Amino acid sequence: MARELHHPDRDQIDLSAVLEALSEPIRREIVLRLLAQGEAPCQVFDAYAPKTNLSYHYARLREAGVTRTRIVGPYRMLSVRTDDLAARFPGLLEAVVAAARAEAAKSPAESRSA
Amino acid sequence: MARELHHPDRDQIDLSAVLEALSEPIRREIVLRLLAQGEAPCQVFDAYAPKTNLSYHYARLREAGVTRTRIVGPYRMLSVRTDDLAARFPGLLEAVVAAARAEAAKSPAESRSA
Repeated sequence: MARELHHPDRDQIDLSAVLEALSEPIRREIVLRLLAQGEAPCQVFDAYAPKTNLSYHYARLREAGVTRTRIVGPYRMLSVRTDDLAARFPGLLEAVVAAARAEAAKSPAESRSA
Repeated sequence: MARELHHPDRDQIDLSAVLEALSEPIRREIVLRLLAQGEAPCQVFDAYAPKTNLSYHYARLREAGVTRTRIVGPYRMLSVRTDDLAARFPGLLEAVVAAARAEAAKSPAESRSA
């Protein structure tokens, strides 16, 4: 297994890929938590979904340029690429985060697992 | 065929569905053109994709609450639900539109058909 995972350069971040990555509720929850807490090991999301699904979600977020995965010994540390996203698509991440919070505030019990 | 097509109520517009609808380049182009021109008959988009694909894209946009389809005789008139989207997810549509324009300005020749 490669020790360095692929991340698109800032200029290569694709709008379709970003929107697609953020269209999935679990991936949005991961992003919101990372934004609130800062960089975190994958393990903090273990309760969000089965492990294979989570691996898939991490890869989609990383390949879309939404998150960065840093390998530290046995840990994979995730963070949101806020600077890159702000430079590439100003205001987009903030708008999606605000929308996600608005939706969560409106229907806290409702959860989709698309 | 029903003369009234289903549209979600404003309160039922779902963030995942909106982001998914806007994650597709042709659907974003349709939305951008509708925003620029106002309500327009489907036919103006005939060159964007084969007809069956377009029907699918119109349905995805409508079911997500992004567009409204109004049946006028033999025509289907499309418009963007800007007021509903602004009320439900303030700033989201603007941010996606700005990002789409930024991306188009950067790579005018590049087109994805995901």
